[in-house]
Amino acid sequence: MTNVMDKAALQDYLSKEFGPVGAALSIEEVTEQSVTLRLTPEQHHIRLGGTVSGPSLFMLADVGFFFAILARLGPVAMAVTTNASIDFMRKPDGAKPVLGECTVHKLGRTLAVGQVLMRNPGSDKVLAQASMTYAIPPKRD
Amino acid sequence: MTNVMDKAALQDYLSKEFGPVGAALSIEEVTEQSVTLRLTPEQHHIRLGGTVSGPSLFMLADVGFFFAILARLGPVAMAVTTNASIDFMRKPDGAKPVLGECTVHKLGRTLAVGQVLMRNPGSDKVLAQASMTYAIPPKRD
Amino acid sequence: MTNVMDKAALQDYLSKEFGPVGAALSIEEVTEQSVTLRLTPEQHHIRLGGTVSGPSLFMLADVGFFFAILARLGPVAMAVTTNASIDFMRKPDGAKPVLGECTVHKLGRTLAVGQVLMRNPGSDKVLAQASMTYAIPPKRD
Amino acid sequence: MTNVMDKAALQDYLSKEFGPVGAALSIEEVTEQSVTLRLTPEQHHIRLGGTVSGPSLFMLADVGFFFAILARLGPVAMAVTTNASIDFMRKPDGAKPVLGECTVHKLGRTLAVGQVLMRNPGSDKVLAQASMTYAIPPKRD
Repeated sequence: MTNVMDKAALQDYLSKEFGPVGAALSIEEVTEQSVTLRLTPEQHHIRLGGTVSGPSLFMLADVGFFFAILARLGPVAMAVTTNASIDFMRKPDGAKPVLGECTVHKLGRTLAVGQVLMRNPGSDKVLAQASMTYAIPPKRD
Repeated sequence: MTNVMDKAALQDYLSKEFGPVGAALSIEEVTEQSVTLRLTPEQHHIRLGGTVSGPSLFMLADVGFFFAILARLGPVAMAVTTNASIDFMRKPDGAKPVLGECTVHKLGRTLAVGQVLMRNPGSDKVLAQASMTYAIPPKRD
Repeated sequence: MTNVMDKAALQDYLSKEFGPVGAALSIEEVTEQSVTLRLTPEQHHIRLGGTVSGPSLFMLADVGFFFAILARLGPVAMAVTTNASIDFMRKPDGAKPVLGECTVHKLGRTLAVGQVLMRNPGSDKVLAQASMTYAIPPKRD
Repeated sequence: MTNVMDKAALQDYLSKEFGPVGAALSIEEVTEQSVTLRLTPEQHHIRLGGTVSGPSLFMLADVGFFFAILARLGPVAMAVTTNASIDFMRKPDGAKPVLGECTVHKLGRTLAVGQVLMRNPGSDKVLAQASMTYAIPPKRD
């Protein structure tokens, strides 16, 4: 599939539209297959014990997959999450960034479905995996 | 099943241990079947369009189910989320609290499994449903 | 919500349309809130160790939720499963029937979302829980 | 990670231990990263409309991920599925085999977690994705 927004355009959208949530996030890499976001944990992302909290990883997957759709469709529509299933496998060190590699496996007329793999930079150990489904609103003519 | 912590004890634990996250949450009701938490949305829980964000509902389900386990086991162990699957059905009005009714269906030796139903107070419309699995650390002798 | 098909009509549909799959299933109960199906395990539903297999419980949830939608909408449309998340909690004795209580929490224009709780008759122990999403095809005018 | 069973050993185990279920399955490929199973649909795997049924894809994911664990651990333990979340994206043509590529992302002491991607041979279109969690029984000394 072909992208209609590149890394710079996605980063610009993230900076302008996502307010405080976007401050901890940046676009790491954009390929034909996937969009990767970086979460640099802030104080409020850290849980007791010094790990990145579950809701913060969920946010990374949720926002990241939105940008993977955006890369394909452009900022034409307000897609909303309908389902997310997330498996937490390893405790993420709060001192390290987390990369979320977001792949759209199906971009249908009404649903976009795919997955997010979360790892630390330079590591191949998966910290968490998420399956995501977004509803894409119908085009207005 | 019998509870070992009541509403007051759970509220006390929430206030003391959950820091800023806990400020938006309170224990609404505790029965033999379920523990219900209330999320009173703060500014940072609200998305564009005035709805409660997905990660905020995830946080309600995640923390709420932890308290449903706590009611049964007491504050003996540091349980961690291993899987969460959440379906978002209706956009939650950011001006209204959200109640998360958390039910433990299986409290095993190593896993606790159950569900969370999220609704506005006084409404029977389900805003979101979540299936939750927590790993319970082995007892230290 | 109101049903447009009752127990007899659903049972008739099950007998006529579901071929060999339907032979092990029957409509147990239909209320305003939920539709319950009964699975009477046959030899091919049993795994080593004498328990009902995971795919058989999945089939019960999948077919059962279809009938919960049917009760509301009638046999007008060919709904298809888009997501299923299932938690297996207790090993189901292959010598006992399994009841799947199917509840539609949201019946939208394009998606139906809800849950299935599986138990043995007369028991309140949940054997497995499933979250189900079906896509409802658009009406043809 | 290193495998302790190769393709021939896994195929042998499948043929001997999985009875009629195994007849439609074969081990397609085994690498350091993943184990791929092939489902050659039989009559009872086909739904109205000529597509492979949801429960059949679930079975492929469920059995396939078991073999991905087996490749790592050997036939030492009776692992059981605790959670499966599956997204159905495209209707699989019942006349074509389905390959399930099974990857273990985390092999812990008590849980094995990973994913399964299902495609037709020679196609890169994902038909369905599954997230799988198996509980691994404790070693008996």
